[in-house]
Amino acid sequence: MKVKPLGDRVVIKRLEAEEKTKSGIVLTGTAKERPQEAEVVAVGPGAVVDGKRVEMEVKVGDKVLYSKYAGTEVKVDSEEYIILKQEDILAVVE
Amino acid sequence: MKVKPLGDRVVIKRLEAEEKTKSGIVLTGTAKERPQEAEVVAVGPGAVVDGKRVEMEVKVGDKVLYSKYAGTEVKVDSEEYIILKQEDILAVVE
Amino acid sequence: MKVKPLGDRVVIKRLEAEEKTKSGIVLTGTAKERPQEAEVVAVGPGAVVDGKRVEMEVKVGDKVLYSKYAGTEVKVDSEEYIILKQEDILAVVE
Amino acid sequence: MKVKPLGDRVVIKRLEAEEKTKSGIVLTGTAKERPQEAEVVAVGPGAVVDGKRVEMEVKVGDKVLYSKYAGTEVKVDSEEYIILKQEDILAVVE
Amino acid sequence: MKVKPLGDRVVIKRLEAEEKTKSGIVLTGTAKERPQEAEVVAVGPGAVVDGKRVEMEVKVGDKVLYSKYAGTEVKVDSEEYIILKQEDILAVVE
Amino acid sequence: MKVKPLGDRVVIKRLEAEEKTKSGIVLTGTAKERPQEAEVVAVGPGAVVDGKRVEMEVKVGDKVLYSKYAGTEVKVDSEEYIILKQEDILAVVE
Amino acid sequence: MKVKPLGDRVVIKRLEAEEKTKSGIVLTGTAKERPQEAEVVAVGPGAVVDGKRVEMEVKVGDKVLYSKYAGTEVKVDSEEYIILKQEDILAVVE
Repeated sequence: MKVKPLGDRVVIKRLEAEEKTKSGIVLTGTAKERPQEAEVVAVGPGAVVDGKRVEMEVKVGDKVLYSKYAGTEVKVDSEEYIILKQEDILAVVE
Repeated sequence: MKVKPLGDRVVIKRLEAEEKTKSGIVLTGTAKERPQEAEVVAVGPGAVVDGKRVEMEVKVGDKVLYSKYAGTEVKVDSEEYIILKQEDILAVVE
Repeated sequence: MKVKPLGDRVVIKRLEAEEKTKSGIVLTGTAKERPQEAEVVAVGPGAVVDGKRVEMEVKVGDKVLYSKYAGTEVKVDSEEYIILKQEDILAVVE
Repeated sequence: MKVKPLGDRVVIKRLEAEEKTKSGIVLTGTAKERPQEAEVVAVGPGAVVDGKRVEMEVKVGDKVLYSKYAGTEVKVDSEEYIILKQEDILAVVE
Repeated sequence: MKVKPLGDRVVIKRLEAEEKTKSGIVLTGTAKERPQEAEVVAVGPGAVVDGKRVEMEVKVGDKVLYSKYAGTEVKVDSEEYIILKQEDILAVVE
Repeated sequence: MKVKPLGDRVVIKRLEAEEKTKSGIVLTGTAKERPQEAEVVAVGPGAVVDGKRVEMEVKVGDKVLYSKYAGTEVKVDSEEYIILKQEDILAVVE
Repeated sequence: MKVKPLGDRVVIKRLEAEEKTKSGIVLTGTAKERPQEAEVVAVGPGAVVDGKRVEMEVKVGDKVLYSKYAGTEVKVDSEEYIILKQEDILAVVE
């Protein structure tokens, strides 16, 4: 199944935060902060402003930082994704 | 009876979530998350911006993901529908 | 007495919900959901945007679905009406 | 004393609601709903949008229905008036 | 000292409400409603919209009615004034 | 150290309210109202609207009245300043 | 790892507030006010308005004052940064 976001929306998949501390202890549950890093999985065609489509700034495969709480979580084929507007993506991480 | 949405509104019908778990147990009621997947049943003519009608991006028959809580639930001929603005549709699922 | 709405407002009259259940029992009071279907009774001349009047999409006699809680209830000659903006009308029912 | 409203404001005077019930009993105080009908007493010159003045749609003497709670009550020469924006007038009653 | 308001702001001075009732009793303190009538003391040059300055509609000396709670009270040389935007002035009283 | 405000921001320094009453008693602390008069210390280059920079209306050295609670207090080299947008300056005092 | 902010966003790194008082005592924890000074670490390409990119006013290396509570804190490679919109930067400090 494929998810095609509308307008200037982007589908991202959270990257698992590194679960081991330096000492090798595995952190679980509430001890980890909610990760804010994700990978772009699908990109919408861009918003239409004054009749012209605005080109998107992120592309599939980009690692991004996103606003905590932004977007909507959806579950497709048992996988969790977040669909958000590009303006809620803060930065690309290289 | 036929429902014709105004402007950039869309009429959708919720798709029943797969009600069986892997083990075959049928889930009912509150044990299921409220489904967010729906099928487009009717599409408005599009909003008018600066005197020009903006073409709609979804069409009848599209499977879509929509914002939880978006739109208004209406009951027509004992069937439940949701009427929402196209901007509350997150993505088309193929 | 006649009510002429201003701008892009519409006067509607609620249609009584079908008051009989399949078994023929008559429902009254709180047992019925507040109906959301109405008939258009009067239509304003349309809003003026950038000096041009925007044509209205609904007309007198249309059956419409409207947003619960939208508009203002008024009583004219002992009859109850709702005056709302056209954008609060969700769809025309045919 | 004369009150000249600014911009797209209108001065209205509430019409006394019919104070007798069918049986002839006179209602007073809280037993009456706050009336929503009024007469236009003065009309502003109209708002200026993009350098052009937008013509007003109501005129002195019009009977109008207005949004409950809209506008500001003022007392001029012991008379109570409401000054509101034309957009808070719902309809003209003829 | 002189106060020159910026943009579309206006400086007004509250007019003392008539403090005598018909019977000649002088009202003080909380027994009087907060007056809403004022005299214009200074007028700003007008807002700049799209590069053009919009002419002000009130002038020094005008008696005006203003929105209760609008604007900011300031004390200059022991005198109290209110500085508010012209849009918070409801009407000119003649 | 020098502070250069961005856009249409202005840096102001509160003027000490006259701390002596007529009888010569020095007021301190909560007995004084928070002063609303200040001197302009630095002026930003102006906001950019539709590609053109809008000229600022205040200049360094102006005595101004400003909205109570407007802006952000900052401490630079042990001196307290307020950085606010020009639109939060109510008037120039001469 | 490198962080590239999108649109008119800026990545800043808080400057440690001078931790010693005049007497040489080192302040820690809640005794210090949350610092509002930071250094610009990365600058986005600028927002796109009406099809044209608006040039950014700050550059990497600038010392800036920023609105308390503005932006989103992110942790990259154990370093804490704040990503905020340029409009939340109050001033450049020289």
